[in-house]
Amino acid sequence: MSHPHSAILLSDAQAHLDQLTKPLGSLGDLEAVAAQIAVLQQTLEIRISHPQALVFAADHGAADAGVSAYPKAVTAQMVLNYLNGGAAINVLAAVNDFTLSVVDAGVDGDFPAHPLLIDAKIARGTQNYLVHPAMTPAQYEQALAHAETIVEQAHARGSNTLLLGEMGIGNTACSALLMHYLTGYDLSLCVGRGTGLDDDGLARKLSLLETAKARRATPQDPATLMCEYGGFEIAMLSGAILAAARRHMLVLIDGFSVSTAAAFAFTINPSARDCVLFTHCSAERGHRLLLEHLKVKPLLDLGMRLGEGSGAGVALPLVRAAAAMFTRMATFASAGVSEKI
Amino acid sequence: MSHPHSAILLSDAQAHLDQLTKPLGSLGDLEAVAAQIAVLQQTLEIRISHPQALVFAADHGAADAGVSAYPKAVTAQMVLNYLNGGAAINVLAAVNDFTLSVVDAGVDGDFPAHPLLIDAKIARGTQNYLVHPAMTPAQYEQALAHAETIVEQAHARGSNTLLLGEMGIGNTACSALLMHYLTGYDLSLCVGRGTGLDDDGLARKLSLLETAKARRATPQDPATLMCEYGGFEIAMLSGAILAAARRHMLVLIDGFSVSTAAAFAFTINPSARDCVLFTHCSAERGHRLLLEHLKVKPLLDLGMRLGEGSGAGVALPLVRAAAAMFTRMATFASAGVSEKI
Repeated sequence: MSHPHSAILLSDAQAHLDQLTKPLGSLGDLEAVAAQIAVLQQTLEIRISHPQALVFAADHGAADAGVSAYPKAVTAQMVLNYLNGGAAINVLAAVNDFTLSVVDAGVDGDFPAHPLLIDAKIARGTQNYLVHPAMTPAQYEQALAHAETIVEQAHARGSNTLLLGEMGIGNTACSALLMHYLTGYDLSLCVGRGTGLDDDGLARKLSLLETAKARRATPQDPATLMCEYGGFEIAMLSGAILAAARRHMLVLIDGFSVSTAAAFAFTINPSARDCVLFTHCSAERGHRLLLEHLKVKPLLDLGMRLGEGSGAGVALPLVRAAAAMFTRMATFASAGVSEKI
Repeated sequence: MSHPHSAILLSDAQAHLDQLTKPLGSLGDLEAVAAQIAVLQQTLEIRISHPQALVFAADHGAADAGVSAYPKAVTAQMVLNYLNGGAAINVLAAVNDFTLSVVDAGVDGDFPAHPLLIDAKIARGTQNYLVHPAMTPAQYEQALAHAETIVEQAHARGSNTLLLGEMGIGNTACSALLMHYLTGYDLSLCVGRGTGLDDDGLARKLSLLETAKARRATPQDPATLMCEYGGFEIAMLSGAILAAARRHMLVLIDGFSVSTAAAFAFTINPSARDCVLFTHCSAERGHRLLLEHLKVKPLLDLGMRLGEGSGAGVALPLVRAAAAMFTRMATFASAGVSEKI
């Protein structure tokens, strides 16, 4: 049965997989990855072209209130570390052959112009959501507009695949608040240790977020939610997912904060799910529950909790391998191999 | 505290990891991989050099008795598919940059000389263990000797990392018998669907293996076990693990049958564990239980069940990434990044 416009359906991709010289289904989750890409790219000649990592960095007004194990200054320090090539994501970009750009979405610091840096600074960090809305509606719109421009530039350079990451001291706290409102799960289930809070720190983080929650009534629409409790990097990440979906680009989602941005993006455009691949379940507490809520099984479960796109960077070779096996393996017929008895 | 001979201990490797610009432990399982390699290679300058995949292929006398969903002829057909470059492991070798050799350990078929083929044929398949011992003690010794030669040749070419795989119609049945005797688990927990048996086929496979088991008293030593119920590829795989351990080579273990060979090798030399990395938990029923028995968590859990070293081939980039992050990331001091508050 063919689609009115001869579109590539999931069933076409699976039929192709079932001709390859392997027991049926024996590539496991990599078969689903290849089939998803075939439908997204609307071809059986799937390919991963010029993968581009975008690490969105921003600061959070609430960071110094005690929601993180690291001082707020680390956001800017880590951006400099990316520019100097010393972070995990730099090493992964080199060994796994992808391009890295760091987006200053709103870091409380100044940076020299640098080939790896995209300046999209909205402000020097959000307002402290414990007492004020984190951002204005105009800032939220600006974040989406910046994301659209950044994704369009990557697309124009020939990239059909994005790896999304983040850096922002305090952003697992902001993500926990967003997850709570997006999923309805109790806040205590959404809050985790971030970069390494101890038990007391975790209790303080939860208590602060309960305070933030009590500041106002439940936000009734996505834009209000992001303005009240979001972050510039989270807003821009959600915009990047929506922009990539409009261009049928594959998006590799990293850890907890990027997954929260994805869940947020899906409330605005549910079909953005089709372009998204969840690469890793992080050790951050809320992440496994969020992935279950989204009914996705990520490719990797390595206990990483670093952010900065590292899970996506580690997973990229699996995506490339899935695409290569889909397009290059022999068929039973071409290889003269007997099929199942 | 340093070792008498300034050896690299796990604690040295962890101390190195804890200086890198990332939250403590945030690379998850990849930290353990890097630390294992540092201890194995006795240096903090760890590297993966000339990784070599060895796919050991052999036939099983019991294969045509009904223990597999595919006919026995597929073993030789798949060997030809490897030589022609059409199988999954060929594609993985190309995209993940490792060398592939196929070892004819005892296939019931003849092959032309070929650059990818290593001729180590012991016989045209084992005897049918339903009625006879599968191999003679001399054949078992020959398998170990071939493995020693093959691993030495790879080592002499500069390889410090092996990826071990197998191809042999009927070998999950043989592996289930070996697992049963090596672990003490009930045979029904060790037997799975292999390349795709249905419920009736699975019941028949278990029944045949119960018959094989009833043929004689429990083998009392590893050599007798392998001779009674083993396979040439399984024996040679266990020999390859022992030979690699003697040379401090890293060994990436693939699916169920290779893991069974590893469990067998550990009964002969328990310290061979130090060189072994389990890369993937396959969908074959006994595999998860065997890995639990060995107290290991594999890197990947993708539901693959293809064999031929494909899980190891998919996992290799993760091992390379772990090594690269270990050796190339900046430290907190060198990057000027603040440590935990």
